[in-house]
Amino acid sequence: MKLPPFDEFIDKLKHFDRKMLSKAFTLNESTLEIHNDLFDSILNALKPVEDQSLVIGITGIPGVGKSTFIESFGSYLHQLGKKIAVFAIDPSSQNTQGSILGDKTRMEQLSRLPNVFIRPSPSSNQLGGLGLNTHKNIALAKAIGFDIILVETVGVGQSETMVKELCDLFLLLMMPGSGDELQGVKKGIMEMANLLIVHKADGELIEAAEKSKKELEAALHYTRDHSDENAVFLYSSLTQKNADAIWNWIERWILNRKKNLDFYKNRKKQDEFWFDYEWKQLLIKHISETHRDTLNDLQSEITKGNFISRKQIIERILYQSYL
Amino acid sequence: MKLPPFDEFIDKLKHFDRKMLSKAFTLNESTLEIHNDLFDSILNALKPVEDQSLVIGITGIPGVGKSTFIESFGSYLHQLGKKIAVFAIDPSSQNTQGSILGDKTRMEQLSRLPNVFIRPSPSSNQLGGLGLNTHKNIALAKAIGFDIILVETVGVGQSETMVKELCDLFLLLMMPGSGDELQGVKKGIMEMANLLIVHKADGELIEAAEKSKKELEAALHYTRDHSDENAVFLYSSLTQKNADAIWNWIERWILNRKKNLDFYKNRKKQDEFWFDYEWKQLLIKHISETHRDTLNDLQSEITKGNFISRKQIIERILYQSYL
Repeated sequence: MKLPPFDEFIDKLKHFDRKMLSKAFTLNESTLEIHNDLFDSILNALKPVEDQSLVIGITGIPGVGKSTFIESFGSYLHQLGKKIAVFAIDPSSQNTQGSILGDKTRMEQLSRLPNVFIRPSPSSNQLGGLGLNTHKNIALAKAIGFDIILVETVGVGQSETMVKELCDLFLLLMMPGSGDELQGVKKGIMEMANLLIVHKADGELIEAAEKSKKELEAALHYTRDHSDENAVFLYSSLTQKNADAIWNWIERWILNRKKNLDFYKNRKKQDEFWFDYEWKQLLIKHISETHRDTLNDLQSEITKGNFISRKQIIERILYQSYL
Repeated sequence: MKLPPFDEFIDKLKHFDRKMLSKAFTLNESTLEIHNDLFDSILNALKPVEDQSLVIGITGIPGVGKSTFIESFGSYLHQLGKKIAVFAIDPSSQNTQGSILGDKTRMEQLSRLPNVFIRPSPSSNQLGGLGLNTHKNIALAKAIGFDIILVETVGVGQSETMVKELCDLFLLLMMPGSGDELQGVKKGIMEMANLLIVHKADGELIEAAEKSKKELEAALHYTRDHSDENAVFLYSSLTQKNADAIWNWIERWILNRKKNLDFYKNRKKQDEFWFDYEWKQLLIKHISETHRDTLNDLQSEITKGNFISRKQIIERILYQSYL
């Protein structure tokens, strides 16, 4: 990877240079320590005094139109003068048919707007593999000064939990339709969401969408504690209907969260989560590399049929390293 | 936990004493090192010269009747004189509403038969928490001499991958019904399965079941490489219809796998998987306990807003331990 001198790199990143952003994120997602080091230095050099960015997580079942929503609502936010970065979390990308954002034709219009950057989900042919460093990508996007950072989930499996640990506000997209459709969304996910949006509320689906909205509001009324205000909106990606109302609601919600300090408490809790996640990943990577012989020895003894207890495994690793 | 003297403990386990089996598995699932040590000693003491057991993984979407199938087909196997152990893998048990096997009324008949042992899925109020040591439970069941070890998945999320790494044969239960229902099963799961069984093939559902069988056979024909023979059967848990045919097929399939050595290659690969899994778990647990201060220091610096790079994190942990 060809890189400019450090100061020039930083300067270009501050000016939202698409090519440099791409390179920076690739450094983070790389499995090479030297790349990660450089990324961390960049992140450190960029660290702003005050962080004005807002991270919005977006989930919903496959087919609900997450990319379409991001393209449409993102364009609306862009018109308001916001600088926007889009990421995807896909911890299961090894197993899914296609990468969710890798398809270059998606969000094509949004991706061409100035001060908008869309990071495709790392796929297996890229350096990063599983995209497990997305939290660092988001930290860089914050440091550079993106106003709005949208994080899309694949909407299946465990990606929602990861995104919840990354975002200030968690948005669930729903299909217009009857109770049956609502059940496609796992109970836990609905409880995680701060904002529910019934998508595709246009044309023939308007009535169904309105019915869904009422059902969701009723459901929220019963299942939620009322410590957090939450809301249900209709949205159409075709007409951008309700974009104003949704954005106003988000602004008020965030302001309120900042006032009562929940916003900052949540970010602190997230820092703790990611530190815990990170040291474990780093330690395993380090021991895998430095203790390869011990691990191979243990492995081959076990496959030969020798019994090795848990205590012996950890002692053998520790003995080699005087841990 | 009250335990008998070691030799008596071993002897009772060899005689499939239900109470002692329960205690042994609890030692394994415990988070206390001293319990795990004792379990490992028991496992070492029991290790048989030859392992004649067969591990069958069973999956399928919720509602397909996995427990009912195990109760019915397990009773059939018991009539053949087989000693049977049943486990459940539920890595997501924290989040699901109820434990799958914890409900004592399930598999009630099967659980009362001699030489049958059903291990409920560890729930959070038990020592083990998430049941991540199931592979060791299965090792003990093999060492004690259970002939058939059935491992049930919850059928959602990632439990299938774990079970695949535990079993000699992977069985997928399907609902009778049209193509729509078939799509509820993730593509990857169907490809993992060695044996497909259309369940509830009785009464009004017989026709639908037969149709499903034909569709599955057609689907297998196109999606599978033919390196492994595989089959689709109908089954009724009410009538035990086809139990003979299914068991005969399994016996022939396993015999064939043993002849071409795939059976042993698979077990070796599984040993490698679980060793890799195990040392990582053990290492993280060890460092969490022994390096608590360093980790807390790092944590509090980060939450104060100080920047700490990945390199610094690992160096701080290593410095403390001269790793």
